[in-house]
Amino acid sequence: MTSVVVNLSERNEPERASLDQLTAVTAADIVRVNQIILDRMQSPVYLIPQVAGHIIAAGGKRLRPMLTLASARMCGYGAEAHYGLAACVEFIHTATLLHDDVVDESNLRRGTPSANAVWGNKSSVLVGDFLFSRAFELMVECGSLEVLRILSNASSVIAEGEVLQLITANDTETTEADYLEVIRSKTAKLFAAATEISAVIADRPEAERRALETFGHNIGMAFQLVDDVLDYAARQATLGKTVGNDFREGKITMPVICALRACDEESRTFFRRTLEDLEQKKGDFKRATAIMERTGAFAATIEQARRYGAVARQALTTFADGSERRALLEAVDFAIRRAY
Amino acid sequence: MTSVVVNLSERNEPERASLDQLTAVTAADIVRVNQIILDRMQSPVYLIPQVAGHIIAAGGKRLRPMLTLASARMCGYGAEAHYGLAACVEFIHTATLLHDDVVDESNLRRGTPSANAVWGNKSSVLVGDFLFSRAFELMVECGSLEVLRILSNASSVIAEGEVLQLITANDTETTEADYLEVIRSKTAKLFAAATEISAVIADRPEAERRALETFGHNIGMAFQLVDDVLDYAARQATLGKTVGNDFREGKITMPVICALRACDEESRTFFRRTLEDLEQKKGDFKRATAIMERTGAFAATIEQARRYGAVARQALTTFADGSERRALLEAVDFAIRRAY
Repeated sequence: MTSVVVNLSERNEPERASLDQLTAVTAADIVRVNQIILDRMQSPVYLIPQVAGHIIAAGGKRLRPMLTLASARMCGYGAEAHYGLAACVEFIHTATLLHDDVVDESNLRRGTPSANAVWGNKSSVLVGDFLFSRAFELMVECGSLEVLRILSNASSVIAEGEVLQLITANDTETTEADYLEVIRSKTAKLFAAATEISAVIADRPEAERRALETFGHNIGMAFQLVDDVLDYAARQATLGKTVGNDFREGKITMPVICALRACDEESRTFFRRTLEDLEQKKGDFKRATAIMERTGAFAATIEQARRYGAVARQALTTFADGSERRALLEAVDFAIRRAY
Repeated sequence: MTSVVVNLSERNEPERASLDQLTAVTAADIVRVNQIILDRMQSPVYLIPQVAGHIIAAGGKRLRPMLTLASARMCGYGAEAHYGLAACVEFIHTATLLHDDVVDESNLRRGTPSANAVWGNKSSVLVGDFLFSRAFELMVECGSLEVLRILSNASSVIAEGEVLQLITANDTETTEADYLEVIRSKTAKLFAAATEISAVIADRPEAERRALETFGHNIGMAFQLVDDVLDYAARQATLGKTVGNDFREGKITMPVICALRACDEESRTFFRRTLEDLEQKKGDFKRATAIMERTGAFAATIEQARRYGAVARQALTTFADGSERRALLEAVDFAIRRAY
């Protein structure tokens, strides 16, 4: 059987994408951002830095803040507001992760507690609230009402997307349009806000602001589509997180929708049992992955991600060539071809 | 045995306090606020208005928004920003309640099943996030960075207080200072912000701003102290929420701290078993209440509330007499003597 790895590199693209350029152009700035993150997650209430530190340290790449930083530099921004805003974006992301970890007791009984197993639901909710509030304090400090409008709106939309995802979970009738709305809200909106605010603080014309919003939205869509493939197809060690989470929770993601569209009735019954009724047994995850490969669901999802990636790249033509623009183009590659 | 009712009306104060004057002076304004609340809890994601409507409709007195409205009028404010801000304050409060329901696993909130009992933990968390984000959108619309600073800081402090409460739960070594810090953060801070912002939008001098902050802080402290008494001593029908929640969860509140200070070793062992180890059996709640009455724990807690109330009243002397000031003075009475 053809492996996913081969499928995804069919266009003779390099085997792995990296964030080397993005990391390089933001290397000096990210030090400042990390310092702000560290400072602002402190609290005399010891449990807060403990829980926040756990997830922020684990949280890794700092992709969203790096996008804010590189966009700001590409816009010729020379002042200091982007440090706090990049930290703010990471705090919103982290708060969302913490709240995502909260599980209903019914889920716990199925034996799938996530990272919150260490401190429990209570801490995840409240420390998430704290980080979310700190994010707002950081954006208030930046002093731009326009930035505040963009980020507070993004927060509302993210919450809406998370609720929509909750509604569509375990429902194999979920349409592609529903799914795209979920990931537009829960993922792409923060990417779009993270890059748009850079044009705002740099006081760039409307066209550049729209271009950066378009870039952020589309790289975010691509990122999430690939993330949803990786949740089935990545090797655990490579992805750095557990494979099979979406399957276990019955989340209806693009690979599922593509597979359902192309598979036979027997497979459809299989997905209803495993994803709707959450009746899962040993070997089911492997079987799901096999159906997805057979029906071309992974390839179709990656193809969609490529199309979003192309729009993201196109949006950057508004800006002159330079190391930041190249780094952002590289980030698009990374979003699509990472970690296979 | 002397009943709590008699204890609390020992000073020949009327048997029950009301919010009639506060309701009257804010009657026209609150209609606008309720409309904003209704508009802003809408979302195409149907679960959001469903869950939000449940808790907001179940809700309430609208005490906090009424305090914002009356304070603004007392400051001579004549424009319209206080409507959105009062709604914002209620949204923050409601979001906290939703997240509190997750945290506390309580089944009743204001006499109706709590949101998480009906829709699950995850809905409570995510809809709370949505309302919290909407609160931020509302404050951004008001356009005052100073107001944004006050309210975003209040949000952080509230989250800190909630985490601190989590830490002190089930710990009978919790000091009075710890407890006061918890209620200052989780309750009094929002009251203080709700009234301080009125002076800010009305562009009043620093002294009036400080006076309103002091008023809000102290009425908030009094309110919470009495709330903690009511969780043991109120009749369920009167309070409209389950009596005994704090006991069942092992929350260490002021009545507990006062009782522990004054009781014998046998009672202390009883509290360690029931509140620390959460080993509770039939009759334990009644026994706890009896110890509190016997040791004067309720009276001592109410006496503390009275002292905070006196400071709140004193703060209002900064302002001229008038229907709004009288309404705010009445609210102090209400905070202390409500619902026996």
